[in-house]
Amino acid sequence: MKNAIIGVIGGIGPCAGLDFMQNIFNNTRAAQDQDHLDCVLVSCPSMITDRTGFLLSGGEGENPALGMFESAKKLHAAGAAYAVAACNTAHAGRIFKPFCQMVHAALPELTIINMLETCADYVKKNLAVKRIGLLATRGTHTSRVYHEYFGGGFELLEPDEAGQERVHQAIYSAEFGIKACSQPVKPQARETVEREICRLAERGAQAVILGCTELPLAVHAAYALPVVIINPALIAARALIALVAPEKLLGGE
Amino acid sequence: MKNAIIGVIGGIGPCAGLDFMQNIFNNTRAAQDQDHLDCVLVSCPSMITDRTGFLLSGGEGENPALGMFESAKKLHAAGAAYAVAACNTAHAGRIFKPFCQMVHAALPELTIINMLETCADYVKKNLAVKRIGLLATRGTHTSRVYHEYFGGGFELLEPDEAGQERVHQAIYSAEFGIKACSQPVKPQARETVEREICRLAERGAQAVILGCTELPLAVHAAYALPVVIINPALIAARALIALVAPEKLLGGE
Repeated sequence: MKNAIIGVIGGIGPCAGLDFMQNIFNNTRAAQDQDHLDCVLVSCPSMITDRTGFLLSGGEGENPALGMFESAKKLHAAGAAYAVAACNTAHAGRIFKPFCQMVHAALPELTIINMLETCADYVKKNLAVKRIGLLATRGTHTSRVYHEYFGGGFELLEPDEAGQERVHQAIYSAEFGIKACSQPVKPQARETVEREICRLAERGAQAVILGCTELPLAVHAAYALPVVIINPALIAARALIALVAPEKLLGGE
Repeated sequence: MKNAIIGVIGGIGPCAGLDFMQNIFNNTRAAQDQDHLDCVLVSCPSMITDRTGFLLSGGEGENPALGMFESAKKLHAAGAAYAVAACNTAHAGRIFKPFCQMVHAALPELTIINMLETCADYVKKNLAVKRIGLLATRGTHTSRVYHEYFGGGFELLEPDEAGQERVHQAIYSAEFGIKACSQPVKPQARETVEREICRLAERGAQAVILGCTELPLAVHAAYALPVVIINPALIAARALIALVAPEKLLGGE
């Protein structure tokens, strides 16, 4: 029996979308091409306005939800049954709620997988941690979307203002940021991210969430980080495999 | 103005499809997400039978062209204007011709980019080489599809029978082959590929074609290979950028 087709809204950013797909492939039990799950990636970044820019402007300009909805329509047209947005900042209520409303109204058969909710559920169920560090864009930081999903019982530690700015630059800088340069990630971006992870660990974080889908691109090659790393994209990719073909999920649920 | 949407038939294999997309992103002039080209990747491997198996059986079983056509329909439904198949073996006439016929008849607005033809044109135009090594699957080897596209004026050097078998295993082995293990590629596969490249160079090849989209996954990390490497997926990705947004092609045409 063929699996339901997994849809990924990529392009936000493009390499993070590929990384999401790679997470699916890496976590699928497969010895030949045909064993892999059927997936569609829509990477149409020109249609989706910047998520952080929208949130920081207080909602001026076009809502990225509109472009994400266009991508969802493409996924649906291509036969996808599930859709996940490979971008943390896009999960802020001001973007994600109207996106979900549009999808529910126009494409009721397309099931949206909420990456942040999936991540929070996983952490609550599987990790005995209460003090969690969060590295994210200014948009995710300001919108406090992770606070919403993690709720009470967790203490979320974020970098101070200067640290938050450094993380944001590691993602967004046109000279060395991960969005501009990810093949390979520039040492300045990687070192910044690693340093901020260590700072959060020093402040008592038992785990650190890579709360931007670009951050794993910088951390993939890192070894010996002094803290548990929580990668929401990896968790959501595994949740999707568990949904469509649980017998193919590598390493158990 | 938005670019025409690039469509990639992936899943053959899955990681080669991602690598094709990464080639597009890596070769696009972009400082922010929105600068990147709009693309769709359909990675539905369960629908596409093994290309080499089909060719070696003399055309028994379902033609992979049927599944590739299903993927093309999905790309078209998602708005793609161009479609490229990220698999060399799929370009053998016995597969690619019926595929093109089905697309031309049912989806006349979808333009197929022939990766091997694009590669041959590029080499003829840009590289002063005449003796070219070819590493490929048994299917590509047996179908002599590269001979068809390169035609007279080129001498194509292929590994001997034992070498051809080693290359095929480096791609297909369930234990160490690139299709089964590409994150990371196993040393045995990588060393086999590098060794066969060197053998072809020793036999006088001035360049070596990585004539299977899995092979670049093994060669990406290789340094100091003694010969020019021709990566048809990279050449086709750059040709697609030149088609839809020539001003964004990094490094000139």
